Amino acid sequence: MAAKENWEKVSPEEKHPRKVFGLAAKDTSGALSPFTFSRRNNGDDDVTIKILYCGICHSDLHTIKNEWKNTIYPIVPGHEIVGTVIEAGQNVQKFKVGDKVGVGCMVNSCRSCSSCSQNLENYCPKMILTYNSVNTDGTITYGGYSDMIVVDKHFVVRFPENLPMDGGAPLLCAGITVYSPMINFGLNEPGKHLGVVGLGGLGHVAVKFGKAFGMKITVISTSLRKKEEAINKLGADAFLVSSDREQMTAAMGTMDGIINTVSAKHDVTPLIFLLKAHGKMIMVGAPEHPLELPVFPLIMGGKILAGTFVGGMKATQEMIDFAGKHNITADIELIRADYVNEAMERLAKSDVKYRFVIDVGNTLATA
Amino acid sequence: MAAKENWEKVSPEEKHPRKVFGLAAKDTSGALSPFTFSRRNNGDDDVTIKILYCGICHSDLHTIKNEWKNTIYPIVPGHEIVGTVIEAGQNVQKFKVGDKVGVGCMVNSCRSCSSCSQNLENYCPKMILTYNSVNTDGTITYGGYSDMIVVDKHFVVRFPENLPMDGGAPLLCAGITVYSPMINFGLNEPGKHLGVVGLGGLGHVAVKFGKAFGMKITVISTSLRKKEEAINKLGADAFLVSSDREQMTAAMGTMDGIINTVSAKHDVTPLIFLLKAHGKMIMVGAPEHPLELPVFPLIMGGKILAGTFVGGMKATQEMIDFAGKHNITADIELIRADYVNEAMERLAKSDVKYRFVIDVGNTLATA
Repeated sequence: MAAKENWEKVSPEEKHPRKVFGLAAKDTSGALSPFTFSRRNNGDDDVTIKILYCGICHSDLHTIKNEWKNTIYPIVPGHEIVGTVIEAGQNVQKFKVGDKVGVGCMVNSCRSCSSCSQNLENYCPKMILTYNSVNTDGTITYGGYSDMIVVDKHFVVRFPENLPMDGGAPLLCAGITVYSPMINFGLNEPGKHLGVVGLGGLGHVAVKFGKAFGMKITVISTSLRKKEEAINKLGADAFLVSSDREQMTAAMGTMDGIINTVSAKHDVTPLIFLLKAHGKMIMVGAPEHPLELPVFPLIMGGKILAGTFVGGMKATQEMIDFAGKHNITADIELIRADYVNEAMERLAKSDVKYRFVIDVGNTLATA
Repeated sequence: MAAKENWEKVSPEEKHPRKVFGLAAKDTSGALSPFTFSRRNNGDDDVTIKILYCGICHSDLHTIKNEWKNTIYPIVPGHEIVGTVIEAGQNVQKFKVGDKVGVGCMVNSCRSCSSCSQNLENYCPKMILTYNSVNTDGTITYGGYSDMIVVDKHFVVRFPENLPMDGGAPLLCAGITVYSPMINFGLNEPGKHLGVVGLGGLGHVAVKFGKAFGMKITVISTSLRKKEEAINKLGADAFLVSSDREQMTAAMGTMDGIINTVSAKHDVTPLIFLLKAHGKMIMVGAPEHPLELPVFPLIMGGKILAGTFVGGMKATQEMIDFAGKHNITADIELIRADYVNEAMERLAKSDVKYRFVIDVGNTLATA
């Protein structure tokens, strides 16, 4: 490791002792290309993971193009990571070499703040994201579009033996993003009626979790063409086209909760009217511009609008265990690493059912 | 009672057997003038109350001027009612003649829906408001700017012996409106930090309840001139001027919850930033136009925005009992009934600290 004063000048390849190969975007074009960098040696609390699969999250696309204005180039995206343990530090009891494991959106947090002490590391002000964050040693974190990662054991989850690793990878972000608010807001009780707005990477997983909880699920979408898939393939009980006033009016006051996955600008007022009294709409997609929120229907119905961001590590382990028990995976299109730029183009057009997953283990080395 | 087919043609004075004198607005001018109407005989489940005091809520002002476009004229406002029982039906065990009692915003509900069965009659779709609602018999409800009211026992609360009846009257609406969300959202725990936005009828009572709960209270207001009163008179711990960026920035991330009482258009974004992770902002004032709500800070902080409307009857009794135990009353200006129109003009300019209460018992008859 270089002396601190020269730190900034040291190349990503030289900052740490262990060489890693991955795919990085080098500028706002977002084009991903081969990139050699480095990771730290495995510390006493660390787990080193050979990455086998990594999902492509919409955040990856936003970040490689610097759409959130905070990208540090070069950037190696990827926070839906599944692989096997190839090294475990001496303080690591939970994992041993050969274990299947997963890593999600974060790789560190302060471990002592109010959020951390409530198992909500995801809201720790010092939480370190899996990529595009400044780590405690001052280096930039690089994500899962790479062949190996070193992660503190606290931020690694056991991956269920029975679950396919490729289809399970997206659960580490998309899965926990919808599972966590369902649990926290009591939207996991059999017989309750849950609306899922938007049928993409997040929405289709919300439908699956909701059905596994024994709930009635209604998908709300702008597009009628998703109806058959929602009902026949994913098992939703009903489907509403959000522009169909008659349908929307008939469904008013029927839902205990809504998981809203839409990040495009949209009118939330008719969605609020779908909620029963004391109903809850949870925003997990982040529209760039502010919503127009009418307060009167919130007040008269005692309704809640909340935002949530992934989930804590305890909840993430519970989520993936629950998925294992109920055989829940994301519907994916498994791609070769050299297809990633085309996949990003298709993702920008929502042309995927419902998640791309990179076959890192078999195809990255030749990308 | 007239035959049903002629019901609409029967004057308010003739609809029921018992004559009542009150003050009503007859048109959108909102001017209140003497009005004779009638109320039902005391049924087996009813309590007849001689009204002694009635608070003037901002809703009264909105309604007499038809600002919510739903006013049925003539309208007798008033839903912060305190008086004594003068008759109790044979099924009424809780109250006897001479008891001090209170009536708030509602006088009936279905008693069987999901909301009612959770003691949340305030969200019952068939809830009947104390005034300007159509009652189960088809007549219009008239409120507390009147000398007598007949109310089902379920919607009457015991009024604490030690509490002044005039200062206690506003608690039946303003009090429960802020108390109920504080309880329901865990914003009643000693040591927690509560922000109160707006220091009017609702806000000043929220400060008092918060202090009684042992919380740290910060008042957030547009106007520095309220600072001394907030801190020295009401006992708030701190005061923020919402337009002072430096103050607002320094207070970011410090509050467990916010009770937002402001019904004027305002920017909620800086208020959301005042919340800690998992913080909750409860809207109890209803701005006429939609809010601009940024979703990103909600998501990244796991924050909640909720609306609530008064509280159920169980909570209302608990609130007034708590107020009795802690000697909490509203700060009021007690007025004669013939001052009510001037009071409304002053209320429109927020020229009252903090609630007008009509001395119904001593002054209505001569109004």
